[in-house]
Amino acid sequence: MLLEYIDKPEQLHTLNIDQLEQLAGELREYIIKTVSQTGGHLAPSLGAVELTLALYSTFHLPVDKVVWDVGHQAYAHKILTGRREQFKKLRQKGGITGFPCRKESAYDAFGVGHASTSISGALGMAAARDILGRGEHVIAVIGDGAMTGGEAFEALNHAGDLKKNLIVVLNDNGMSIDCNVGAMSEYLSKIRVAPQYRQVKEDLKGFLRSIPHIGDTVVKTAEYLKDGMRAVLVPGEIFEEMGFVYVGPIDGHNIAAMKDVFERVRLVDGPVLVHVHTKKGKGYLPAELQPDKFHGVGKFDIPSGKVIKASGKPPTYTSVFSDAIVTLAEKNTRIAAITAAMPEGTGLKRFSELYPERYFDVGIAEEHAVTLAAGMATAGIHPVVAIYSSFAQRSYDQLMHDVCLQNLPVTLCLDRAGLVGADGATHHGAFDLSYLRTMPGMVVMAPKDENELRHMLYTAVNYEGPAAVRYPRGEGIGVPLDSDFNELEIGKAEVIRDGGSIAILAVGTMVSAACKTAELLLKRGINCTVVNMRFIKPLDKECILQVADKMEAVVTMEENVLNGGFGSAVVELLADEGRSIPVLRFGIPDEFIEQGTQSELREQCGLTPEQMSEKINDMLNRD
Amino acid sequence: MLLEYIDKPEQLHTLNIDQLEQLAGELREYIIKTVSQTGGHLAPSLGAVELTLALYSTFHLPVDKVVWDVGHQAYAHKILTGRREQFKKLRQKGGITGFPCRKESAYDAFGVGHASTSISGALGMAAARDILGRGEHVIAVIGDGAMTGGEAFEALNHAGDLKKNLIVVLNDNGMSIDCNVGAMSEYLSKIRVAPQYRQVKEDLKGFLRSIPHIGDTVVKTAEYLKDGMRAVLVPGEIFEEMGFVYVGPIDGHNIAAMKDVFERVRLVDGPVLVHVHTKKGKGYLPAELQPDKFHGVGKFDIPSGKVIKASGKPPTYTSVFSDAIVTLAEKNTRIAAITAAMPEGTGLKRFSELYPERYFDVGIAEEHAVTLAAGMATAGIHPVVAIYSSFAQRSYDQLMHDVCLQNLPVTLCLDRAGLVGADGATHHGAFDLSYLRTMPGMVVMAPKDENELRHMLYTAVNYEGPAAVRYPRGEGIGVPLDSDFNELEIGKAEVIRDGGSIAILAVGTMVSAACKTAELLLKRGINCTVVNMRFIKPLDKECILQVADKMEAVVTMEENVLNGGFGSAVVELLADEGRSIPVLRFGIPDEFIEQGTQSELREQCGLTPEQMSEKINDMLNRD
Repeated sequence: MLLEYIDKPEQLHTLNIDQLEQLAGELREYIIKTVSQTGGHLAPSLGAVELTLALYSTFHLPVDKVVWDVGHQAYAHKILTGRREQFKKLRQKGGITGFPCRKESAYDAFGVGHASTSISGALGMAAARDILGRGEHVIAVIGDGAMTGGEAFEALNHAGDLKKNLIVVLNDNGMSIDCNVGAMSEYLSKIRVAPQYRQVKEDLKGFLRSIPHIGDTVVKTAEYLKDGMRAVLVPGEIFEEMGFVYVGPIDGHNIAAMKDVFERVRLVDGPVLVHVHTKKGKGYLPAELQPDKFHGVGKFDIPSGKVIKASGKPPTYTSVFSDAIVTLAEKNTRIAAITAAMPEGTGLKRFSELYPERYFDVGIAEEHAVTLAAGMATAGIHPVVAIYSSFAQRSYDQLMHDVCLQNLPVTLCLDRAGLVGADGATHHGAFDLSYLRTMPGMVVMAPKDENELRHMLYTAVNYEGPAAVRYPRGEGIGVPLDSDFNELEIGKAEVIRDGGSIAILAVGTMVSAACKTAELLLKRGINCTVVNMRFIKPLDKECILQVADKMEAVVTMEENVLNGGFGSAVVELLADEGRSIPVLRFGIPDEFIEQGTQSELREQCGLTPEQMSEKINDMLNRD
Repeated sequence: MLLEYIDKPEQLHTLNIDQLEQLAGELREYIIKTVSQTGGHLAPSLGAVELTLALYSTFHLPVDKVVWDVGHQAYAHKILTGRREQFKKLRQKGGITGFPCRKESAYDAFGVGHASTSISGALGMAAARDILGRGEHVIAVIGDGAMTGGEAFEALNHAGDLKKNLIVVLNDNGMSIDCNVGAMSEYLSKIRVAPQYRQVKEDLKGFLRSIPHIGDTVVKTAEYLKDGMRAVLVPGEIFEEMGFVYVGPIDGHNIAAMKDVFERVRLVDGPVLVHVHTKKGKGYLPAELQPDKFHGVGKFDIPSGKVIKASGKPPTYTSVFSDAIVTLAEKNTRIAAITAAMPEGTGLKRFSELYPERYFDVGIAEEHAVTLAAGMATAGIHPVVAIYSSFAQRSYDQLMHDVCLQNLPVTLCLDRAGLVGADGATHHGAFDLSYLRTMPGMVVMAPKDENELRHMLYTAVNYEGPAAVRYPRGEGIGVPLDSDFNELEIGKAEVIRDGGSIAILAVGTMVSAACKTAELLLKRGINCTVVNMRFIKPLDKECILQVADKMEAVVTMEENVLNGGFGSAVVELLADEGRSIPVLRFGIPDEFIEQGTQSELREQCGLTPEQMSEKINDMLNRD
């Protein structure tokens, strides 16, 4: 065992290729074993084991900087940079995060989680280095999936112009999270199947020298051909045109070949793109065969590759959405569906199979996804854009400028809203209620359970304007699902429980927590009204004011930051309407919340019924 | 005069080329004459006159759809689509907007204002058309500047893959708003100077046929050459590789040539990119010579091209920022400056001249700008990112995920915050306080005057974390400028006026409005405290609570939407701290505000001292 002796990447410089290859095997085994227990981003990390070793045995970390795009592929990086033991607590509360994170290690040069930021971040480091007159190497490692994001293009465009020393490693596994899409992806696969070009290049040199100079035209033509030769023979023409020196494609599981290239590109002046070809899930057959399933995975059985699922659990919100959108689209042929590279994660896979002509996977491109939807909506289609809440932040301006400003019928389905659990700080959907409610004309809903999600989706696709439905990661609460769809009245709340002197106004997941809180309070002799607000925008002002006028205090509950969120909308309303009534707001505090299980994190934020009932009780006793 | 008879673009189909050319001249004259009176985006619109005529005399609007990116170049479009007379009220309150806008005309297929959305929007229209089985043409017209935005790349990537009929016209004038930057721009200029390729192509065909087949290698080589020929001879290789048929470059002032191409590309299956070469400011010499100055311009004298400036006005916030950043960067060599294609607009021109090695123009790429800054900040540089407030919406996620989550020392200077005036709904910086204050760790400031802007900038660049300073479009209030810089205490408000029973808490531009309001109230016998909050985040809680405890009512004033803004933060605080005191909030209502002068719009929003003092007086009398 070599792995147990490696505590920092500098030690890799003392190993020979055989030893590095042995280490690759050990790393792979350790990753598979650990992730089978913790869950995590297995397939991408398995694909990048040799690449990590080749980089870290060539460059000198942490002086040289490696920026991993998204960070899905950075488990070998974590293990090799002093976190071998902590890796067993991957993605757990108090353990290490699933992504590179500057707070966690000096080797984590740049915090990541959302896609397509690595070239920008690395270029910033290179620019700073040059201003300050230092000489370290800066390397961005980006997948072909993340390369479809516009920010990556913006950064390539700028880097090709700036001409600073920068190495971009394109880790091309031919996949995004699911299958990759887009013209760039086709282009890369063309490169990948291109034969080795070196021999041909030599042949051509001789051939061109042999062309007889029989007149101006042919001479000129030969000149053109010489220039053109580069274009034919260098597969990375696009990157060359963007100002990069292109090297590749190289086998991303051949450590020696990669080290050879990295040794050479270290010496190149200006930006270089090294194109390595890897296999997602490499070395673990179930993951090689089903790389999408093993992209991010829960606990699994290693020999069989079977994911260990708790049986008898209610369906997830995602699967309820998946069924509902398919059913609605059958009758309503104006519904189209858009995903940004996550058909499986967002539940649009079945839609894509049943209605391929109305289904659009745009790649990791949330900005384009939303403007595309706006364009469709101007032309008679009602698009449903399904994105994780945290990634929808990428389309803030498009939601505002293209959808709301034009008041277009676009439905936004925000999965993974609120606290998402193991993915941690970069992935919580903690801000959507705050930013969506500032957008004029946007309808914002959150279902109290998976059944209400169906009705909200139906309401949204029948609404002639922008509407968002946000719902949490994971299972519903196990309520029966209505077979019919009901259109909810826009802006109308549902009073679940009446009476008492306290009103709890709750949204989304917090409605069931509110009911439990009310029960706990009842045991202490405190009776509560509980309102399922359904709509964060427009607010049911009438309901809130009626309730407030009868009560001694109002309590708001949301799984969103307190700043500017639902509770904030309530205190705004009460102030505007001149009501002086104590308001106690529960929500996510003004800080970034790290990883843990969803229930651990809810407790950390003081959002369990026990904690909330205690606090409400305290407030009443204080008054 | 032909122009006076043209009320809809269908009439253009009856004109011959000579008449269209005559019309181009008339249009140009009309645009220059009108914009010299109203101000507006002159140079881009002058460059697109022939292009508009060629498109509109070939395609059938409004059935066929033309999406103009940004909309800076759409004045000929407006005039030819029934708005000739209204054009005289361009960008004025109650008049027509400066950008295409769906509410304004059936010919405005897609509302624009922010850059790089046109291909996405047009692709959405094409997708909807195909789902619904219609056959209209969809055309996106995008400048080479807007092509540097990541969303345009995302859309190209998707369009090249989808293979839907879509025409993208690349209106290449070699400029963004200022000089264009980026590798793509270099690439385009290489194409532009490339000689006509048709003849060479013919020559080559014969040449290749003449190659003797003397062995396997040469045969194979010849095959390569044939494929490669396309790459050499078709200048738009990148676009071809992205799945587009590329046609060009064409003279964008030659109507006949363009019509000829448009007639032919109408028949092409799949996505086509037509590359036209235009001159920004074409036909008006002062604008041709200084296209950046005439990009967006105020009133000017036609013969001389001199911009008519009111004399004796105080300096603009932009110019105060411009001087301050240059002064600070002289001593503090760790300061770098970043702009997204607007060195002139944001005031970074002088910085770029004095400290070119610390200055970065990234193109129209706000996402990259912010992550680049984050990268720099990890490596010892303190970057100052200067963006218009409205465009910073593009970098919401990068501010959250790359800057705040990593708590990096990045200063964000948001010019054009609040109501911007003539540019209207797409350009108001009305949302920044709401979204910035939800970001954990972000310091958010707004200066009461141009002098305080200097101190806030100094405070921000000396602060070891993320900080934003937002300030309005236009002139300061004319206060003297301190020669020194003072570091303000983070989160500390300034009490400007003490006493009375009402406290006005104001931010930014509203501080001087608050003082005037207080004076008006004093005339009615009502004495007020006025607080310049300085910091929207962190709030000076102590000050607010102290004041609230002494007063009968609190008034908040901000030039930001009321939803989730500064006043919202105040009512949150008062609720959290159990204070029951009436709060009256002034700000921008929950709707999109159209164009007008800044003072007209402030009045429309009820933000003049007269209106506010009246409302405060009413509240007091009611209580």
